[in-house]
Amino acid sequence: MARIAGSSGPRTEEAIRRAGLKLIATHGYAAMSLRQLAAEVGIQQGSLYNYFRNKQEFLFDLIRGHMLDLHAALDAALLPEGSAEARLTRFTEFHVAYHVERAQEVFICYSELRSLEPDNLAAVVAMRRDYERKLGDILDHGCATGEFRLSDTRMATLAILAMLSGICTWYKPGGRLSTDGLQAIFTGMVLALARGGETQAVPVPARRRGVLRAGIG
Amino acid sequence: MARIAGSSGPRTEEAIRRAGLKLIATHGYAAMSLRQLAAEVGIQQGSLYNYFRNKQEFLFDLIRGHMLDLHAALDAALLPEGSAEARLTRFTEFHVAYHVERAQEVFICYSELRSLEPDNLAAVVAMRRDYERKLGDILDHGCATGEFRLSDTRMATLAILAMLSGICTWYKPGGRLSTDGLQAIFTGMVLALARGGETQAVPVPARRRGVLRAGIG
Repeated sequence: MARIAGSSGPRTEEAIRRAGLKLIATHGYAAMSLRQLAAEVGIQQGSLYNYFRNKQEFLFDLIRGHMLDLHAALDAALLPEGSAEARLTRFTEFHVAYHVERAQEVFICYSELRSLEPDNLAAVVAMRRDYERKLGDILDHGCATGEFRLSDTRMATLAILAMLSGICTWYKPGGRLSTDGLQAIFTGMVLALARGGETQAVPVPARRRGVLRAGIG
Repeated sequence: MARIAGSSGPRTEEAIRRAGLKLIATHGYAAMSLRQLAAEVGIQQGSLYNYFRNKQEFLFDLIRGHMLDLHAALDAALLPEGSAEARLTRFTEFHVAYHVERAQEVFICYSELRSLEPDNLAAVVAMRRDYERKLGDILDHGCATGEFRLSDTRMATLAILAMLSGICTWYKPGGRLSTDGLQAIFTGMVLALARGGETQAVPVPARRRGVLRAGIG
């Protein structure tokens, strides 16, 4: 098969990365063979070892590379100071814009954590924790200034990230809403969640537990 | 290999379902072989065909079965009437309790949609749409009564479901929070999001777009 990816190392590396993302997103990591990957890029299988030692290292590089890029981009975007609401707005706009562009990477980062070997998993989990901490700091700041009312900022961090990253599961370019539109709607919801509104629970009729248990079986 | 799953059909069927969930959650659908599945259950591979025609039908049955159970349980739990806030509280408590018990099914229902053949995918997407519609109806009801202020109830539906289903990605039984605790915290956040609070966007400093673009590259 002809080399379609050009002869330069960085271009081939990027072609391998893109082909790997596509194959893993379509079939899963366990079902992807290096033979398939080489064929997709248009190089000999042996040439892959110029870029990584084995399939596990390739997966780890993909996920770690995504996390490193994400952190660098977030650090460039975040407001170093300002109100917690302004900082949370900036965080939300950043996260939405960054993630709608990278649905495949995000999908793999969630679905293939299972395929990472323990040391690699620990490294990726630590990077995710660090990203979560950057949002958590903003929420803690807002609770300290009284801008936000949250009973559990750790849970709020995870809830907000799940809400925003969930966009990747259904977003299609050219749909009803532009990235700007999504940013505005999701920023509104995130701010409302953080501001907390009334904190009282709504009373629900009796037999709640019974009905739920019956439903769950 | 001895038959460890008992000789009765329903018990074997349930053993196959559990083994399949485990194998798919660990390796992915494409990497799971029916030979592995039969070995895990402790039956001959040919006996699997008493329960499904092929591997695709098995995946579809798993996902469709989960969705059917989910709908039946939701319909039993939902409040037929009452305020939108009470109905949303009930929905949230139900979704949290149901999903923390079924992390594997939920993971597969999201990650293996890619592996469904077109007709099967269409059927599952329709069932998900129907589930989303039940939440969307509650949000529309609340906007009509003035209990909720949401600029886009379709986006709010997807945001709330992503937030709640995200619990499955990190929840471990015996952790810091009980199911009751999770229900209370997430109900508080969902109600705050739906009530909307102030709708004004927070002004963010100039050069926002430039910084974001630079960050995204």
